[in-house]
Amino acid sequence: MLLIITPNPSIDRTMVFTDLHLGSVQRTDEVLVTAGGKGLNVARAALTLGQAALVCAPLGGHSGALLADLAAAEGMQGRWSQHNAGETRTCVLLVNRSGGDATALNEAGPILSGADWASFAGLVVEVAAQASLCLVAGSLPRGVAASQLGMLLHQLHAAGRRVIVDTSGAALQSAIDARPYGIKVNASELGAILGYAIPDVDAAKAAVTQLHSMGIAVAVVSLGAHGAVAADASGVYWVAAPRIAVVSTIGSGDSLLAGLATGLLRGQNLEAALRLGVACGSADALTVGGGRIDLAEVASTGSATAPLAVAEPAEAELVEAMRRAQIF
Amino acid sequence: MLLIITPNPSIDRTMVFTDLHLGSVQRTDEVLVTAGGKGLNVARAALTLGQAALVCAPLGGHSGALLADLAAAEGMQGRWSQHNAGETRTCVLLVNRSGGDATALNEAGPILSGADWASFAGLVVEVAAQASLCLVAGSLPRGVAASQLGMLLHQLHAAGRRVIVDTSGAALQSAIDARPYGIKVNASELGAILGYAIPDVDAAKAAVTQLHSMGIAVAVVSLGAHGAVAADASGVYWVAAPRIAVVSTIGSGDSLLAGLATGLLRGQNLEAALRLGVACGSADALTVGGGRIDLAEVASTGSATAPLAVAEPAEAELVEAMRRAQIF
Repeated sequence: MLLIITPNPSIDRTMVFTDLHLGSVQRTDEVLVTAGGKGLNVARAALTLGQAALVCAPLGGHSGALLADLAAAEGMQGRWSQHNAGETRTCVLLVNRSGGDATALNEAGPILSGADWASFAGLVVEVAAQASLCLVAGSLPRGVAASQLGMLLHQLHAAGRRVIVDTSGAALQSAIDARPYGIKVNASELGAILGYAIPDVDAAKAAVTQLHSMGIAVAVVSLGAHGAVAADASGVYWVAAPRIAVVSTIGSGDSLLAGLATGLLRGQNLEAALRLGVACGSADALTVGGGRIDLAEVASTGSATAPLAVAEPAEAELVEAMRRAQIF
Repeated sequence: MLLIITPNPSIDRTMVFTDLHLGSVQRTDEVLVTAGGKGLNVARAALTLGQAALVCAPLGGHSGALLADLAAAEGMQGRWSQHNAGETRTCVLLVNRSGGDATALNEAGPILSGADWASFAGLVVEVAAQASLCLVAGSLPRGVAASQLGMLLHQLHAAGRRVIVDTSGAALQSAIDARPYGIKVNASELGAILGYAIPDVDAAKAAVTQLHSMGIAVAVVSLGAHGAVAADASGVYWVAAPRIAVVSTIGSGDSLLAGLATGLLRGQNLEAALRLGVACGSADALTVGGGRIDLAEVASTGSATAPLAVAEPAEAELVEAMRRAQIF
């Protein structure tokens, strides 16, 4: 079972407009309301892949109850801790059919107390006993220090659990310090922690190699339209993304994580799991709504990717592969 | 008691940004979640004015329960009918501190069945027995025909109730056809029904005179920064708005209606009630959030307005008054 630890869930309201512009009253008939936040997106994509998964999240108020209902209606399995910090947050995602990238308007959410976090962390540790792999997906709620995530990771490590973390900022730093089984982040989040920009595959290779050398077994960095790069004990791998007509990239990184985790749980090697991850991330970008992937798209996108093992890549080989993938 | 009939309520999420732009991920710490829709804004402003008011609205799902809680937490009185059409809608209001007018992203909301509407209309008729004045504020839910509003207005008229209607489109046409006690709308909504533009005070005077001649006792049209114009049996009145530094005009028309209704219930003549209404609308524009008015601002804004009785206005007199009010 895959356990998806979701510290800061949200109700995601995706509003679709024909021609969105600021400064006036606009109406939409098309609204997609879903259980959201990165962890719920990962769970949605995992469900589509047929991977048994359980989401753990702290919930509050009427919005929390709505989130639990929405997740159940989609067939997602959840174990929720109730907090007393007020309403679960709502994030608003604006999709403009007349073009332009999607806009995500994210609320910070309620401020959890120490007792609220302890209740959630206790539930996570209890449920993790049955998990083959754990993911930590997304930001921390307000009121929760990065060190509290670090402590939870140490507890899970002590219990023999494998955890892959996808977060950012101080929480990511704290996670890296705790040396979890895996780290999966995007290039800008990782670059902000490592102190250098990660603009291309070469820099990403250096970054995942650095993480692996620090004792993190599986290090993955996603590069958007450039695909993703990963390192483990067997080597360093790059999987290019296919060229697609992007609808919304919101949730693509979460679908990548779902594919990667599913591949690893199925016993695939890192390169194959990364290929599944990139295929899922690309399929997600074809849809409105985070973590919504079509299996046929995953299959066709997967076969269109150009995986490249680069244990010791030659510069020319990389450039040629990227040229073939029409990235440059 | 003032009864505020609110057919299509919403949860209003007002998100405040330092520098909002489309096409990226943006975070806000400042979110105001309130019971919303035009009727709830009217009730909020009336409460501040000390006017006893009761809101009637159909509610659904977790969002409906949240709306009832939020209204109660503000001290607003509500009588709610439960519908089975899904979640009460959410409207998203974006305020950009770095300038630009506010953006309202309105959902259409759930589709009410005939039984849902009958339950709501029955509650309205029951509660109206105790009301000195009724207001209908806002749009109709999906699934409800304009003629159903017309039938409700006929029922209320038959029961001897005075009703002022503020709506738009087909619902406004149906309301006008039912000849209620009053109509209060903005210039663009009324112009769309009457078939001519209402760009200035003269045109507004002609429009309210036309409504009054049709048998509508009190006809009011709001002109935004130009104030408002009203007609009843005693004459036609224009109240200019003071020049203010607008923060958000969302809800200004609703606060105007609250002030107007409160004035009339206190036995003021139409001119005085309109002056209170314009003062409330202006005070609302100084704040984020619909129907939030500061009594001190209402008082100072009220004294700054330049009311002008124009029972038979001379063109030159109007132009001079508008010049003095710095509108042109």
